[in-house]
Amino acid sequence: GLVHIKNPHLDAMDEDVLYHLDLGTKTHDLPAMFGDIKFVCVGGSPNRMRAFAQFMHRELGLAGDGEELADICAGTDRCAMYRAGPVLSISHGMGIPSISIVLHELIKLLHHAKCRDVTVIRIGTSGGLGTEAGSVVITDMALDSSFRPRLEQVVLGDVVVRNTELDKDLAEELLACSKEIPDFPTLIGHTMCTYDFYEGQGRLDGALCSFSSEKKLEYLRRAYDAGVRNIEMESAAFAALCGLCGLRGESSRTPCLHPT
Amino acid sequence: GLVHIKNPHLDAMDEDVLYHLDLGTKTHDLPAMFGDIKFVCVGGSPNRMRAFAQFMHRELGLAGDGEELADICAGTDRCAMYRAGPVLSISHGMGIPSISIVLHELIKLLHHAKCRDVTVIRIGTSGGLGTEAGSVVITDMALDSSFRPRLEQVVLGDVVVRNTELDKDLAEELLACSKEIPDFPTLIGHTMCTYDFYEGQGRLDGALCSFSSEKKLEYLRRAYDAGVRNIEMESAAFAALCGLCGLRGESSRTPCLHPT
Repeated sequence: GLVHIKNPHLDAMDEDVLYHLDLGTKTHDLPAMFGDIKFVCVGGSPNRMRAFAQFMHRELGLAGDGEELADICAGTDRCAMYRAGPVLSISHGMGIPSISIVLHELIKLLHHAKCRDVTVIRIGTSGGLGTEAGSVVITDMALDSSFRPRLEQVVLGDVVVRNTELDKDLAEELLACSKEIPDFPTLIGHTMCTYDFYEGQGRLDGALCSFSSEKKLEYLRRAYDAGVRNIEMESAAFAALCGLCGLRGESSRTPCLHPT
Repeated sequence: GLVHIKNPHLDAMDEDVLYHLDLGTKTHDLPAMFGDIKFVCVGGSPNRMRAFAQFMHRELGLAGDGEELADICAGTDRCAMYRAGPVLSISHGMGIPSISIVLHELIKLLHHAKCRDVTVIRIGTSGGLGTEAGSVVITDMALDSSFRPRLEQVVLGDVVVRNTELDKDLAEELLACSKEIPDFPTLIGHTMCTYDFYEGQGRLDGALCSFSSEKKLEYLRRAYDAGVRNIEMESAAFAALCGLCGLRGESSRTPCLHPT
């Protein structure tokens, strides 16, 4: 149940500075601070992840009203981190490069803290495809812009292809949870992960747009036919990194209507 | 000198909501708020961009000490925006997808505000390659991880290749400015722009690392031989978008030593 770090250099390092979290192995007692963490929820916006931690604080019946939760990463503005009991809530900004930085350092944090049996869930908003606004899409696999379940990662200039399937049992568990709550429309589907919000997702309202409304709809229809139910910008990196490091991970997003 | 929006759909829109800036054409008088802007400086961190606006406020001799500058995008935590006289200072987070979102909306903002002759400069830190820590690299062109001056942009699932050269005259002007300041080591060079901070930039201290220290150094040496003097994660999108929209743009970064 430990987190797998796949980096032989790390053991030889005297100190590991988690730069973007403003934490480190020499400056912080990571096992004492985080050793009992069982759930990590990540999302783009710092304010939302604080609100989520406050919500978890109340749901878990912890002492106090949770309004005063401290940002554990207060020394940096690259991300915000809060904890509520065994739940850690962290923001990661927008896009694959941004979430990758935070996940590399989060995974090392869980490793250094000797956490066991950690479940990581990405939460947030997304553009829905043929799904009712306000419903939740639980991702079974992240697809690229050509609808393939893969992430192309450049390592020293060479492209390495990584799998982007997520934990199927966890997806089913989350779906079962949703059924306990009335009026909580939830489905399992594929999520398309793009590198761009405007041209990459077929939006007509960016600073650049070279395609017609018809071409946009044709592309989104092809995505729907390939099983895509929502579109966002981080799930592929999330799936690839969780999978490689042995973390039970799931990405569930609330789709808004896809803007015209 | 106007900003070129290359999107025929935009004129037909009744309202343009700049969602990630929390601004819009119906909710804000953009020409009154921004019409006199001449310089836009963008950088990753919200705190640093506030500090930069405060610095500009003092340098320009504006009334007050500048400590109380209001965040124009206070209604969102996706980015922060401050102004000091004709200078706008905006944060864009980490990575190409994140800066692309902010630049699409910033370019539309400058267009709606009818700004003229705007210069955009990206400022920030970077990993230096064979350059003294603390010096400034002014980017003449952004290179991808294979050292090519191009950005591959996916549009409706198809790859479009874009040029990533920056404004040569502006680079020379900035270099001339640096010479007026004592002990301000500055050079013009190529900047490599990657999608990943750890594996993509040859770092040995990520959660994943599949290469040896020798392979890393060999790659960085090849980058240096191709003219790369620093490495970061946004310059290619910055160069491509500024170039396509007729904005005079330059990216200058202060390299830290490239971490082992």
